Amino acid sequence: MAAKILLIFLCVNVISFLVNASSRPHMCAVESGGKCSESGEWKGEFFPGIPKITYEGPRSRNRLAYKWYNAEEVIFGRKMKDWLRFSVAFWHTFRGTGGDPFGAPTKYWPWEDGTNSVAMAKRRMRANFEFINKLGIDRWCFHDRDIAPEGKTIQETNSNLDEVVKLAKELQGDNIRPLWGTAQLFMHPRYMHGGCTSSELGVYVYAATQVKKAMEVTHYLGGENYVFWGGREGYQTLLNTDMEFELDHMAKFLEAAVAYKKKIGFKGTLLIEPKPQEPTKHQYDWDAATTMNFLQRHGLVGEFKLNIECNHATLSGHSCHHDVETARINGLLGNIDANSGDPQTGWDTDQFLTDIGEATMIMLSVIKNGGLEPGGLNFDAKLRRESTDVEDMFIAHIVGMDTLARGLRNAAKLIEDGSLSELIHMRYASFDNELGALIEAGKANFEMLEKKAIEWGEPKVASAKQELAEMIFQSFL
Amino acid sequence: MAAKILLIFLCVNVISFLVNASSRPHMCAVESGGKCSESGEWKGEFFPGIPKITYEGPRSRNRLAYKWYNAEEVIFGRKMKDWLRFSVAFWHTFRGTGGDPFGAPTKYWPWEDGTNSVAMAKRRMRANFEFINKLGIDRWCFHDRDIAPEGKTIQETNSNLDEVVKLAKELQGDNIRPLWGTAQLFMHPRYMHGGCTSSELGVYVYAATQVKKAMEVTHYLGGENYVFWGGREGYQTLLNTDMEFELDHMAKFLEAAVAYKKKIGFKGTLLIEPKPQEPTKHQYDWDAATTMNFLQRHGLVGEFKLNIECNHATLSGHSCHHDVETARINGLLGNIDANSGDPQTGWDTDQFLTDIGEATMIMLSVIKNGGLEPGGLNFDAKLRRESTDVEDMFIAHIVGMDTLARGLRNAAKLIEDGSLSELIHMRYASFDNELGALIEAGKANFEMLEKKAIEWGEPKVASAKQELAEMIFQSFL
Amino acid sequence: MAAKILLIFLCVNVISFLVNASSRPHMCAVESGGKCSESGEWKGEFFPGIPKITYEGPRSRNRLAYKWYNAEEVIFGRKMKDWLRFSVAFWHTFRGTGGDPFGAPTKYWPWEDGTNSVAMAKRRMRANFEFINKLGIDRWCFHDRDIAPEGKTIQETNSNLDEVVKLAKELQGDNIRPLWGTAQLFMHPRYMHGGCTSSELGVYVYAATQVKKAMEVTHYLGGENYVFWGGREGYQTLLNTDMEFELDHMAKFLEAAVAYKKKIGFKGTLLIEPKPQEPTKHQYDWDAATTMNFLQRHGLVGEFKLNIECNHATLSGHSCHHDVETARINGLLGNIDANSGDPQTGWDTDQFLTDIGEATMIMLSVIKNGGLEPGGLNFDAKLRRESTDVEDMFIAHIVGMDTLARGLRNAAKLIEDGSLSELIHMRYASFDNELGALIEAGKANFEMLEKKAIEWGEPKVASAKQELAEMIFQSFL
Amino acid sequence: MAAKILLIFLCVNVISFLVNASSRPHMCAVESGGKCSESGEWKGEFFPGIPKITYEGPRSRNRLAYKWYNAEEVIFGRKMKDWLRFSVAFWHTFRGTGGDPFGAPTKYWPWEDGTNSVAMAKRRMRANFEFINKLGIDRWCFHDRDIAPEGKTIQETNSNLDEVVKLAKELQGDNIRPLWGTAQLFMHPRYMHGGCTSSELGVYVYAATQVKKAMEVTHYLGGENYVFWGGREGYQTLLNTDMEFELDHMAKFLEAAVAYKKKIGFKGTLLIEPKPQEPTKHQYDWDAATTMNFLQRHGLVGEFKLNIECNHATLSGHSCHHDVETARINGLLGNIDANSGDPQTGWDTDQFLTDIGEATMIMLSVIKNGGLEPGGLNFDAKLRRESTDVEDMFIAHIVGMDTLARGLRNAAKLIEDGSLSELIHMRYASFDNELGALIEAGKANFEMLEKKAIEWGEPKVASAKQELAEMIFQSFL
Repeated sequence: MAAKILLIFLCVNVISFLVNASSRPHMCAVESGGKCSESGEWKGEFFPGIPKITYEGPRSRNRLAYKWYNAEEVIFGRKMKDWLRFSVAFWHTFRGTGGDPFGAPTKYWPWEDGTNSVAMAKRRMRANFEFINKLGIDRWCFHDRDIAPEGKTIQETNSNLDEVVKLAKELQGDNIRPLWGTAQLFMHPRYMHGGCTSSELGVYVYAATQVKKAMEVTHYLGGENYVFWGGREGYQTLLNTDMEFELDHMAKFLEAAVAYKKKIGFKGTLLIEPKPQEPTKHQYDWDAATTMNFLQRHGLVGEFKLNIECNHATLSGHSCHHDVETARINGLLGNIDANSGDPQTGWDTDQFLTDIGEATMIMLSVIKNGGLEPGGLNFDAKLRRESTDVEDMFIAHIVGMDTLARGLRNAAKLIEDGSLSELIHMRYASFDNELGALIEAGKANFEMLEKKAIEWGEPKVASAKQELAEMIFQSFL
Repeated sequence: MAAKILLIFLCVNVISFLVNASSRPHMCAVESGGKCSESGEWKGEFFPGIPKITYEGPRSRNRLAYKWYNAEEVIFGRKMKDWLRFSVAFWHTFRGTGGDPFGAPTKYWPWEDGTNSVAMAKRRMRANFEFINKLGIDRWCFHDRDIAPEGKTIQETNSNLDEVVKLAKELQGDNIRPLWGTAQLFMHPRYMHGGCTSSELGVYVYAATQVKKAMEVTHYLGGENYVFWGGREGYQTLLNTDMEFELDHMAKFLEAAVAYKKKIGFKGTLLIEPKPQEPTKHQYDWDAATTMNFLQRHGLVGEFKLNIECNHATLSGHSCHHDVETARINGLLGNIDANSGDPQTGWDTDQFLTDIGEATMIMLSVIKNGGLEPGGLNFDAKLRRESTDVEDMFIAHIVGMDTLARGLRNAAKLIEDGSLSELIHMRYASFDNELGALIEAGKANFEMLEKKAIEWGEPKVASAKQELAEMIFQSFL
Repeated sequence: MAAKILLIFLCVNVISFLVNASSRPHMCAVESGGKCSESGEWKGEFFPGIPKITYEGPRSRNRLAYKWYNAEEVIFGRKMKDWLRFSVAFWHTFRGTGGDPFGAPTKYWPWEDGTNSVAMAKRRMRANFEFINKLGIDRWCFHDRDIAPEGKTIQETNSNLDEVVKLAKELQGDNIRPLWGTAQLFMHPRYMHGGCTSSELGVYVYAATQVKKAMEVTHYLGGENYVFWGGREGYQTLLNTDMEFELDHMAKFLEAAVAYKKKIGFKGTLLIEPKPQEPTKHQYDWDAATTMNFLQRHGLVGEFKLNIECNHATLSGHSCHHDVETARINGLLGNIDANSGDPQTGWDTDQFLTDIGEATMIMLSVIKNGGLEPGGLNFDAKLRRESTDVEDMFIAHIVGMDTLARGLRNAAKLIEDGSLSELIHMRYASFDNELGALIEAGKANFEMLEKKAIEWGEPKVASAKQELAEMIFQSFL
Repeated sequence: MAAKILLIFLCVNVISFLVNASSRPHMCAVESGGKCSESGEWKGEFFPGIPKITYEGPRSRNRLAYKWYNAEEVIFGRKMKDWLRFSVAFWHTFRGTGGDPFGAPTKYWPWEDGTNSVAMAKRRMRANFEFINKLGIDRWCFHDRDIAPEGKTIQETNSNLDEVVKLAKELQGDNIRPLWGTAQLFMHPRYMHGGCTSSELGVYVYAATQVKKAMEVTHYLGGENYVFWGGREGYQTLLNTDMEFELDHMAKFLEAAVAYKKKIGFKGTLLIEPKPQEPTKHQYDWDAATTMNFLQRHGLVGEFKLNIECNHATLSGHSCHHDVETARINGLLGNIDANSGDPQTGWDTDQFLTDIGEATMIMLSVIKNGGLEPGGLNFDAKLRRESTDVEDMFIAHIVGMDTLARGLRNAAKLIEDGSLSELIHMRYASFDNELGALIEAGKANFEMLEKKAIEWGEPKVASAKQELAEMIFQSFL
C-alpha cells in the first residue's frame, strides 16, 4: 500500500502551483555581497513579469492571484478592503536582509546598488510603490531610518529624510497613505540602554528630537496613526536598573509627544505596541494589560490606543485573540500587526499568518470593534531567511492577505449564523433579571446576597459546552 | 456600524446547533456527591435520546452527526475507518471526573452509584460498549485499574480484573477489540518513586506483577498492542536520584516484558509512549528521540514501537507532526494519541483535536507510513472540567473524529495534487546525479569533495519557498 | 581518579545530617487509606521527638535547627522576625495530601482519623498550633474550607467554621495571629466557571456569602490581611466566554467586599494574589501589572494591595524579583508568597525556596519597601509528593526560613556595602542637572530638547556594567 | 524606616569595587563606526592598565582579581586548573560586536581598524594571546572564520587561514593550546539551508572542504578536540523538508570526517554540541539524548563525544545538570560550554555563569566523570550588548571562572562530607540483596517476581527526602 501511494507521490505531473517562472526577476548572486546593480537611474519595472495581483477565487491555482481577498466585495455593508485596511511594512519588505544572530544577509534584491545613499533610498521607495500598486492595496508603514539613511548630524539626517519623504508623497498620489509612521529607537548603539528610558540624558534628548521629526513627516504624508514600539525600553537585569526612574521618564516623554502632536495639528491616533521581551530581557510595554496599566497610572489613557501584534501576544503567554480582545473591551484596540509566530519558538519569528482559525478569531474581534479605522492590519511579517526569490515577496503577502480575507468571510458567516453568540448569550442568561441588574449597578451588598444564597441553596451550574463551541467554530472554517 | 452588527448578533433565531435536547440524559446534581443512582442492575439504555451517530456530510448542522467521517468511504483504496482505526479511551471517557489540582470532581454521570465496586465496574463497562456502538467505532483502550477496582491483595485485585474482563470480552462481540491495554503504574502511592525505576525493590516486583497480568488480559481480549507509559519513571530532582541505576532497571524490566510477551504468545506490538514531564519533573521517555536512544542503548529496538501523543510532543518543545515524523522515519511509528494541548499552557490539557491544519499534517504522516495497523488513532482526550452534559461525551468524540477525517481528506487531496511533494522533490534535485549517489553510498571522502568544491566555486542556493509551501498547504484545508 | 573519588563517596561515615531518627513520628501505612488513628481525643504531642527548633548558626549540621534564622537578632534596627514575619500555610501543611493529577494521596499523617468531621478539623487545628509553636513563629494563614468542613447548608457550613475558629482563637493565645485569611472559591464544583465571574447568578451570590463569612472570621481571629486569589476567575476558551461581562462582575464583587470590610470594622489590608493560569487557561489576575490595571480601571486602587507569589511570577514570564519590584514601585507590595517553582516546569510546583540568590533579591525589595508590615512572608509551599516523613514538614520549613534569613543577611550586607546601589546611582547621574529636573517635572518639550540635541551632537553612552553588578551581587552570597 | 535605609543607600562612600579606572583602555566612539585605529603595526599592549589577574581570596574587593580560582591549589589530588581546564572563546571575545536582531554593533574595541583584512586578523590574534596570558589560562577555542577572513576562492580563504594560524602557533608558545577548533557553517548565506544537510549538493561539497581544512589547522595547532555545531542543520518547516534525507546526509558527512581525522593522525576527540533550536526552528542535534540516538542509529557512537552547553540544555527544556549527567552516564561527556541563559528568555543569551548552585552541580558531575580531559570548560559566553568597556571583557571572565571555581570547591566539600551521596545510597539500599542482583543481571522474569510480590504484599515506600537533600546541598554553597 505504501508503495502504491509513493507512486502517486512521484508520478503526478500537472502542478499549476509550480509552473515555470523563468521570466520573473531573480535575486543576484551571493558573490555580489549586495551590490546587485549600478547606481544611477533605475530603468523599467522593479518587478517585471509580476502582474497586478487580482482576485480569481478559491479554486484558482495561480500563486500570483488572490483566492479569498476580493477588495471591492461587500461584507456586512462594508467593502473587504475597508474592513481589512492592509498595509505593507517597509522595513521587512524592503530592508529585510534575511540576516539573523547567526547568519549574514541572504537577500540581494536586484535593485540594490550596495550603498546606503539617499539615491538608493529613493530608488527603494519607487520599488515600494510599485510593489504596493501591484498588490492593489493602499497603505504602507515605516520607521524613519528604514526609508532614509542617517547622516553625520541631526540636521543632515533630517534633510535626508525630507528628501525621501518628498518623493514618497509624490508616489503616494491620491490613494495611498501611511497607515502609520514611527521612529526607529532601537537599532543605533546610542539607544542600547533605551531611548526615553536610557540612563543617559543625551539619549533622552536625542530620542525626543527623532520622534519629533518622525511625527512631522508622518503628518506631512497624511499618516493615519503614529506608533511607539519600545524595543529597548526595558532592562537586561534589575541589578543595574532603576525601574521606577525609567518608567517615570517614559511617561514624561509620552506626555511631551502628546503635546507636540497637538501643537502640529496631527489628528492621527497615537499607538503603543506592546512586546514582552526581545531584544531586551524585559520590556516595559509587556502586553496589552501592562501597557494599559502604565497609561492609567500616568494619566495618558485618552491619548493612546494599542497596536496589538500577534507574535508579541504569544510571546507574552497569551493567544493573539486574547490580547486583541483585551484591547477591544478596554476601548483601546487601534491597530493589529497581523503576523504569526511559531508556537514552539521563544522569539519573534514575524511570519505571515496562514492559520485560518486564528485569522477568523481576529476578524471576529475586528467586526465586534466596528472595524479598526483609522487603524488597520499591517504585515509586521517577513520572508523567511531562506526565501530569496523576488516573487516570494508577493507570494508571502498574497497568502497573508488571503488568510485574513478568509478569516473575515468565516467570521461574517459565524456571526450571521448566530449559533456561537447564542451559546454565549445562553451561558450568562441567569443574570437577566432584577438581582443581576442590581449586581451590575453596584447595588447588591453582601448581606443582601447572603440572604438570597440561603434562600436558594446549592446553585445549579450548567455545562460550558466548550467542545460544542469548538465544533460550531470549526464548521465555519 | 458596531450597533448594526450587534443587532445581527442578538436577533438571529434559527440555530440548529442549539436545538433543545430535553430528552437527553442529564448529569445528576452536585449534592449527590457522585451517588447518582441505586446499585444493582441498570435498566435500559445508558444514553437514551442519543441516536447512533451517522454521517450526514459537511453541510449538516446536527451536532450529533458526522460531517466528515464516513466510515465506509474509500480513500486511496482503503476505507476511512481502516485509515483512522479510532479507539475510545476508557479512562478519560468513563473515569474522568473533571477534577484538577485545584478542584474536586464535576462529573456525576447518571449511571454511577457512588461505589468503586466490581458491580459498578461492570455497569460502567456496559456503558462503554453502548457508547462505542453508538459512535460506530470498534476499538477501545484501557488501563487495568480503570476498568476494575484494586482489592486488598494482588490475588483479589487480579480476580476483580478477571471478572470485569470476562464481561468485556462478551460485550466486544465479533467486531470490537482493544487497540491496546496497559497497566496503571502511576496513581497508587506505592508508585510515587516510579514503577520499574522505583528506589524500592518491593515496588519493582509489584510493578512486574501488575504488568504481567495486564499483558495477559490484553492478550485474552484480543488486544492489538500493549502500551508502556512511564509517568512516574523519572525524577523530581537529581539531588536525590541515581539516574543511571534507574535507567538500567527500566531496561531490565522491559526485557522481562518482552520475554513474557513471547512466552504467552501475544503477537501485538509493544508500544512506549513518550512524555517529557508531568507528573514528574523529568520523565525518562522524554520524546521520540530520547526513547529511541534508550531502546538502542539497551538492545531493545526491534521489540518496541512508539505511541506518539500530540500534547506530549508539544510539551517537549516539538510540533506533533515533528514527533510523528521522527518516529516514522525511524520505522517506529506504532500508534498516535490524537489529542491536542493549549499552545500557551505548560501542562497536558488532553483536549480533543479540532485544528484542521494539524490533523492534515498528522494524516500526511499516517498515509506516508502506509497506515498505522496494528496501531491506530486513540483519543487520549478528555472533556473539559466544565463540560458536564452526558451529550458532551458524544460531541467531543464527534468533533475529534471529524477533525481527523477532515485531515485525512485534505491529506489525500494534497498527495493527489502533488504540488507540495514536487516542491520538496525539486528542492533536493541537485543530488540526483553520480556524486550525490556516491555521497549517499558513503563513498565520497573529503579529498574528493574538496576537489569538486574548488572546481565548482561558490554554489548556487535556491529559495526554500516556505511561503509557497504554506500557500499550497492552506489551499487544501 | 574516578575510582578514588568513588571510594571517598562510599566510605564516608560521620554524617550528622543523616543521624537516625527512630524516635520521631512516622507516617501510617499506605493500606490505611488515610485512617491512621481512632477518632476521639488525641493524646499527647502530635510531633513527639521533634524539639522546639532553635538557632544554632551556619556551622550546625542539625537538620532540626536554624542555621541562618535568628528571630531576635537585629538587622538595620529591626529584629529578623519583624523583617520576615513568617507565616505557616494551613492548607499545604495540614491538608496537603501529595495527590496530583496522575496520583492518589501519599500523605497519611498519624493524627488523621480518615474522616472530614468537625472533630477531626479541631484535632488538626491543635496539630497546627503545636507545629507553629515548635517552629517558633507566630503567624498562620488559611482558607475557610481548609480548616472546617462544608456542611449540607450554608448555615451548617458556617456553624462548622465557627466551631473550629473558636478553638483556633483559644490556641492562638496572645502571640499568634493570622497573617491572612481567605475564602476557597475554586475547589467545589459549583465554582467551576468561577466565583464572582461565574456565568451563573446563583454562584455569584454563593461566593459573596462565602467571602462575607471568611472576612468575618479573619476579623474575629485578629487577622492582619485578607486575600483574594481567583484561580477560577478566568476562562478556558474565549469561544464560550464574555470576558468584559466577567471582568465587570469581578469589579462589582470587590467593591462590595470593600464596603463590607468597612462595615464590620476590619482594618487589615485587602490583598489580590496574581497568577497567570492554572487551573484556568487564562486567569484575570495574570500578574502584578494586569491586576493593577484592573484596579485602576475600576477605581479600586486605594483599597487593595498585592500578594506576590514567586512561582506565579515565574509562570507569567517574569522573575519573582520583577513582580515584587513592580508591586513595590507602584506602592502595592503588600505580602509575598515566598515559594519557588522549577524553572523547566510549566505549572505551579509550590516548592520551598532554597535559592540564595533569589532570596537575596526578594529581601532587597523588602528592605527598600521598609518591610512588609502588616503583610509578611508566607510559605505557599508544599512538601514534594514523595516527601512523606512527618519530620519533612519541619525540614522543609526550616530550609525555607533559613533561605530567606540568609537572603536578609546578604541583602543587608549589600546595602551596607553600597557598591551596587552606587553603581546604579552612577548610571543615571547624567540626569542630575537642570535639564534632567525639567524633564522630570514635565516641562521639557520636544522643541527645547531638539535644540539641546543639535547643540550636543552624538551622545556618549557608558557601559551598563552588568557583569560587574553580577560580580558584586555574587560576592555577598 | 524606609527613609533611614535610603540614607544608608546614598551616603555610603568607601566602595572598592567601584574605584576609578581612568588609566584603563576605552572603547572608541560610536561615530567611528568601528574604525578605531590606523592600520599597520600595533604598538604596545592591547590592554594597558590591566594587570595580570591573580588570586586574592574571597575577601578581595578587587574586581580585577580572582576570589575563588587559585590555579595551582590542589583539590582531590589535582590542581584547580586541571579540573577546570578553562578556555577562552575567540568568537565571542574578539568578534562579538554587541549586535542583535534589532540592533547594530555596540563594541568598538580600540585595536580594530575597521577592516576585515588578514592584517587585522593577525592583530586581533595578538590581542587574544595577551588577553589569555593576562587571565593566566592556557586554552582557547575558535571557528575558522572568526580568526581569518574568507577570500574570493577556497584557495585564497585557506591561504588566509594558514597565515593567521601560523602566527597563532607562534603565539601559543609551549603552554597554550586550542581546547578545540571548529568550522563555521552557519554565518555565510550559502549555508542557509544547512551545511551537510543542505538541499544543495554544492553546499554539502563546500562544507566538507571547509571542515577538512578546519580539522587540519586544529591538528596543526595541537588542538585537543574538534567540535561540530549544527546551527543550520535542521528545518524551518516540515512542509518543505525531507528530514530523513537530511539526517542520512549528516551521518555520511560525519563518517567522512571520522575517516579524515584518522587519515591525518588527529588524536583529539570529535565532539558534537547539541542545541534544540535557534537559529533554525528545529535543529537535529536537539539535546544530548537526541544526538546520542542519531549516533547510535548511524553506528557512530565510539567516534564522538558531546559538548554540552548549559544555555542550550535549558532551551531544550532540561536543566544544565540534566544534560551533563545524561552525557556522563552514557560515557559521552566530553566538554562543557559553561555559560548560562536567562530562565525567562526563549533564546540563547550566552551569559557568563554566575549562579553558584548551578556551578556546584556541574562540578559534581565533572568530578564524578573523573574530570573532562582532554575536554574542558570553555566560555561560550559573551558580554552583554550594553557592556562596552574593555575591562568588562576581564570582569566577565573573572566572575565566570570564579563561579566555576567556587562550584568546584563546594562540590569537593559536598563529596567529602558524604551526606548527600549517602542519602542517595540509602534510597536504593533495598536492591542490595540477591533478588536485586538477579534483576540487575537480567535474570528475574515476571513469574519469579510475581511470586515475590504475592509473598510480600504491599511494599513499604520511604520518603524521598527532597527537602533534606536541598538543605544539605545549600549548606555547602
